[in-house]
Order: sequence, then structure tokens, then C-alpha cells
Amino acid sequence: MGDAFPQAAGRMAAVADPVIAQVGALMRQRPQALSLAQGMVDWAPPPGVSRAVALALAETDRRLDRYGPVQGEPAVLEAVRRELTEERGLDLEGSELLVTAGSNMAFNAIAQVLCDPGDEVLLPLPFYFNHAMAIRLAGGVPVPVAAGLVPDPDRLAAAITPRSRAIVTISPNNPSGLVTPPEVLAAINNLCHRHGLVHVSDEAYADFVHGSVPHASPGRLPGSGGHTVSLFSLSKAYGMAGWRVGYAAVPRQLMGALAKVQDTVLICPPQVSQRAALAALEAGPAWCRPHVEALGQRRRQLLAAVAAARDGGLAVELLGPPDGAFYGLLRFPCALDGESLMRHLVLGHGVAALPGDSFGLPAANGLGQLRLSYGMLDGPDLDEALRRLFQALAVLDR
Amino acid sequence: MGDAFPQAAGRMAAVADPVIAQVGALMRQRPQALSLAQGMVDWAPPPGVSRAVALALAETDRRLDRYGPVQGEPAVLEAVRRELTEERGLDLEGSELLVTAGSNMAFNAIAQVLCDPGDEVLLPLPFYFNHAMAIRLAGGVPVPVAAGLVPDPDRLAAAITPRSRAIVTISPNNPSGLVTPPEVLAAINNLCHRHGLVHVSDEAYADFVHGSVPHASPGRLPGSGGHTVSLFSLSKAYGMAGWRVGYAAVPRQLMGALAKVQDTVLICPPQVSQRAALAALEAGPAWCRPHVEALGQRRRQLLAAVAAARDGGLAVELLGPPDGAFYGLLRFPCALDGESLMRHLVLGHGVAALPGDSFGLPAANGLGQLRLSYGMLDGPDLDEALRRLFQALAVLDR
Repeated sequence: MGDAFPQAAGRMAAVADPVIAQVGALMRQRPQALSLAQGMVDWAPPPGVSRAVALALAETDRRLDRYGPVQGEPAVLEAVRRELTEERGLDLEGSELLVTAGSNMAFNAIAQVLCDPGDEVLLPLPFYFNHAMAIRLAGGVPVPVAAGLVPDPDRLAAAITPRSRAIVTISPNNPSGLVTPPEVLAAINNLCHRHGLVHVSDEAYADFVHGSVPHASPGRLPGSGGHTVSLFSLSKAYGMAGWRVGYAAVPRQLMGALAKVQDTVLICPPQVSQRAALAALEAGPAWCRPHVEALGQRRRQLLAAVAAARDGGLAVELLGPPDGAFYGLLRFPCALDGESLMRHLVLGHGVAALPGDSFGLPAANGLGQLRLSYGMLDGPDLDEALRRLFQALAVLDR
Repeated sequence: MGDAFPQAAGRMAAVADPVIAQVGALMRQRPQALSLAQGMVDWAPPPGVSRAVALALAETDRRLDRYGPVQGEPAVLEAVRRELTEERGLDLEGSELLVTAGSNMAFNAIAQVLCDPGDEVLLPLPFYFNHAMAIRLAGGVPVPVAAGLVPDPDRLAAAITPRSRAIVTISPNNPSGLVTPPEVLAAINNLCHRHGLVHVSDEAYADFVHGSVPHASPGRLPGSGGHTVSLFSLSKAYGMAGWRVGYAAVPRQLMGALAKVQDTVLICPPQVSQRAALAALEAGPAWCRPHVEALGQRRRQLLAAVAAARDGGLAVELLGPPDGAFYGLLRFPCALDGESLMRHLVLGHGVAALPGDSFGLPAANGLGQLRLSYGMLDGPDLDEALRRLFQALAVLDR
């Protein structure tokens, strides 16, 4: 007693270190490095956002300065309801709406609400690291399932146990960019309903579709609201990562428990960010479309660079068609663990990307994976980043 | 399977319902009700806050729109460090700093980091409800300790078990307004150090002192940083509740685990609120002082109303000298449970206050408790609210 400082609880060891902070620390050692790592876009929010915040600042007796309702401001909830029903076609009959400081926070809340110690949440591989971290924090067990990049409902069904509480899908996918076909999401949603599970559908990249498969919300299925959590973010499509606003449609019978979590963690979403969100929602998905379309050129640069590397004799491939988000998941000959790979890329070759380890895909059988983001670089910078990347991977292959 | 919708995990039942939301729902049924319930002040933030946000909006390639570092923006962390060392005299030798979206979020993070299932956190009575809720969410066990309004370190020591992880103090206190003397906080801090516990010192009301006992930070004790969490908020003193910014000094050896929680829950504090925070920290505690001094008149109204009620034959008393924050904890003859009491007050008499139940003090032996906040009302409105309150309590006494 008394001679050692208090340490973190044992269960924290099971929660992964934040990989973005790790890569950030490496990049500070190599300031000229180019980043294919961060999941962020390089455009500014709709101009209405600044105007709305300026107006809010000019009000007398400002709501901006006061606590608001736990679930979010009524005007924001109404705008979200309109968007989810009119633009995205969700059936909200069995749902409530919740505004959070980023959609990660909504995922964290749902994990807290669903998991008793040892409860399982199925994560089709590859998963998004913050999902696994949130489940661990909640005392639950993330169960990675190798169900294929287009998750096979039968393989997910085979992983269900009496402790299963939810299945998480991410479409368009982080980290692969793959867009899951509507009928597959419908089959998973039905599977959840049959087994009394929640289908957590992470749709942070809903507006980022570049190929022929349309984005599909399982929450469109009639009657799905009572067992479906649909997560949306303003961080990506509206260039508002720093404002920390997301929103979710959640099963009504979970709202009481979710309000407990929100009250404990946040009390209420930041008012100023909610004003910004309201303006963004008024701009709507139509405002985002030209920005997303402009990503098409970068996606072609990525595809061309991969093809050129293959032509040059390097055994690289993209694991899925990168038809959504702004990611591609690259496989290549590699025996390094994720941290060593990041150091090799950033310190050795001046380019950053996230290793498969962070997504449940560590190097195995001489093959490694990297998530490549083209959200923050374009034109010659993107070409240069890709040049450095494939040079770095060629070195590993020798 | 399939016939029932998924329900919240069993452990959520142990997390209390958000009482502020409950009282809010009652007040919507009685819009003319006056509120002695909410822990908020009625002044606006320093004028520099609006200017700083306007400047940030006018920047090109705005940091406002981008993710920032997990712990907070370097400029904000530096301003916090300056304030904590130069203004408050903390010894940060063993500490790291963390900015969160409100100091509740910092408490939630520390609870997550400290508690394995069944681990105990000692909460001297009365406690702050969100603390108990956070400990439950983390899988821990809040252990209320009847140690006296000025918590007796010996009684706290007697409640320590092998599962104890931390002791929480709140000074100036929510809900009693009591300011704990420096030597008592020092004794509790030493007790924590001797037993390998963390001392979580909630100082959200640090700038609200009206009596002769000065506010004391246990983090001033030399060498305390390695076992002390000091929580501060901009919500109260700077009138910035809606902006959701708080900050904490935390033991350095816990920072890695805390960063995992912050990354999972929030990714980074909202950038716009950090800009606002920077401006508020520049204004500093000196800016808050006249506002806090002006609360003195309201405090006298409260004391006068209590004295008048006693003169009128009602057996009411304030449990501690309300020398800090903007609260008084009133005891009075009552056999109602908290929810019934709230309904009686709001629906029957048009005045709201929070029942002792929320702070671990349910009615017992024919005596109930209420937290009275004078943060949002003044002058004739405050007098009228107090008139309604004591009328409502007189009815209960008959």
C-alpha cells in the first residue's frame, strides 16, 4: 500500500491503443510525410454553417450557453427526422432519435446499453477499431467473424451464441470501401430480428458511393426500427469532423437506457455544434454530392497506382472494389506487425496508412493489409503519396 | 427468439434515471413553474468567447473543421496548465491534462479506467448523481459513505476494502454548497495515497465561494499528482454549460488508458468549444468574481426565507452552511419519495427542486431533503420561488 501509484483496471488492457494517435506521433517525427491514414475529407462545411453559428452568437439570452435536452435540441431532432424519412427512407415507427458528439459516441452508448459482462457483439471482418474498443469498454466481447468482405449472413448466423447481443455492419465500409448490397443487409437485419439481436448499421459514409451498388439503409425495411440502430455522421460528408456531431435512430425500447448513458457522459450535445448541424442538414445530401463526385478522380488515381504496381511485378491487390467511402484495403507481401509497418512507412518512406491490425486483419501467411484513405490528398500530392507507398512496399517484398 | 424486441442489458437497471430530464418533463406540464432545480447560472460567457469563435469561423483552412488531438488542442492544454499552476497552485509534476466535453465526461472516463467489475468507489454522502451513474456504467460499485457533510477521513478509512479504487470529494459541494476545509481534503488525499487509491476531486464550483472557508484543491499538495484527479468545468463560472467543456489534471500513469476512452467516446473535444474555452481561460477567474459576488444577494434571500419559514413554525434547516456553489441542501418534514415530492412541488405548487434521493439521501424518519439552486433565479422571481417552496413544504407538514 502507498508505495505504488494507482494503475488502470485490468480490463483496460483489452482495449486497443488509439491507432490514429500512434500514427500522429510518428508523423510529428517526419513532418514532410504524406497521410493516407486519417479518415477525414479536405473540404469545408456548407457556408450556412458559419452563418448559423454567427447568428446564434448574436442572439440575446443565448440558448447556445445553456444546457439543452439530453436527446438533442428539438429543431435538430426534427431536421434529422425529416432527413432520415424523406431523404433516406427509413421506417422510424419503432425508433427514437438521438444526437451525439460524433457517431462514435452513439456507438459507445449502444455498446454500454447492450452489454452485460461477457455479452458478445459480432463484428464482420474487417471491423472498425473504435467499435471493438467501445464493446470492450462496456465489458462486452467483440467477436470478429470472417464472413467475407461482403458479409455472408450464414457465416454470421453460425457465430451467434446465447451471449450474442448485436451484429454490426459498416456500409460503405471502413476500412475496405466496399458497399454491401441491399439484399445482404436485409438478410442480416432479418437474422438479427429472428435471434433477438440488434442490428447496428454504421452509415457514416452513406453519402460516399462511387460505383453501381447503391447505399442501402437496413432501417428502410418496414418494421426494422425496433431492432435496428442506424448511425450517421456529419464529420465526413459535410467536412465537419472537428464539430463532433452525429445522430442515430435507435430502438425506442432502448432510449431510456441510452438517455442514462448520454446524461452521464455528455449531459447534452454541445449547443453550438447542434446549430452548425442544423445548417448542414438544411444543405442536405445534395450539397455533398459534388464533393463526393470529385473524389472519383482520386479513386481512379488509387486504382491506377495499384495497377501500375502490379504491372511492375508487385503482388498487391485491393481486397474489395473500393466503391464507397474514400478507402481502399490493400493486400501485399508483408511479414511485419502493424506498428513496425507504420514505422517503416512513415519514418522510412514519408507516407502514412493504417495497418490491417487495427481492423482485425494482422499480417498472416506472408500477407499484410493497409487501409488507404484518399480523403485528405489529391492531385500530385496523392500521386506522390502512392508512389512512396508502393516504393515502401516493394522494399518489403525484396 | 424473434418475438420480442432486444432489451437493455441487466446492469443498466442499476444506473439511475436522469433526474434533470424527469424534472424537465414535469415542468413542461406546468410552464409557469419556477426552477430551483437546475445547476446552471444565468450569466453569459465572457465577451471574448464570441469574438474568438467569430475569428475562428473567419479562418481559411479552418482547424475548427478538422479532428484535433485526443487530449485537446495544444493551446488549450497550455492555457489550462497556466491556470492550474499559476492561478490555482496545483502541483502537476505527476499529472497530465485532458480536455473533455464537460467535466462529467472526464469523470466518466476516470470511472471507466479505474473499475474492473465489482471495484468500489467511495462517495461521501451526499454524492452527485452523475458520479454514481458513471461508476455503475463502468461496472463498478458506488459505495455511499455517511461520513458527515464535512467528510470525516476516519469514517472514509473505515469504508475502504480490498476492492476500493478511489474516493470522490466535491468541494464546494453539489448538492449542499458546503466548502470542505483544506486540512480535511489534505487528510483524505493522504488517505488515498496510503491505500493506493485515486482521490477524485470534483472542483466544478471552485470559483464559487461565499463564506470564510477558502476553496482548496488537494492537487496543491506536493507530490499529489500521481494519485489525484482534479476536475474543473467552464459550465458554471463562465456561464458556458451549453458549450460542453471541462478539463482535468489526471495521474500520468492513467493517461494512456484515459486516451483509449476519450478516443472511443469522443475522438477529440469539439474544436469550436475549445476555441471558446481558450477565450474563457484568458478572461480567467478574475472575470468570474463579480458574477459570483452578485450571487451573495441570492444566498441571503435563501437564508432569509429559511429563517422566516422556521419562524413560521416549519421545522426546516439547511444541512450545511451554503458557503459555496449556488446550492443549499434543505431538510424538512416529509415522507414522500423523491418522484412524488417533485410532482407535489412542480404540479401542485409551481416550483422545482431536486429531491435528496438523487444524491443518496432519500426521505427517512419522516425527514426529506431537497437541493435548492439559486443559479437561475434572482430578485422577486427567487423570492416567489422560495415562497412557493415553503408553502408546498408546509402542506406536507400538516
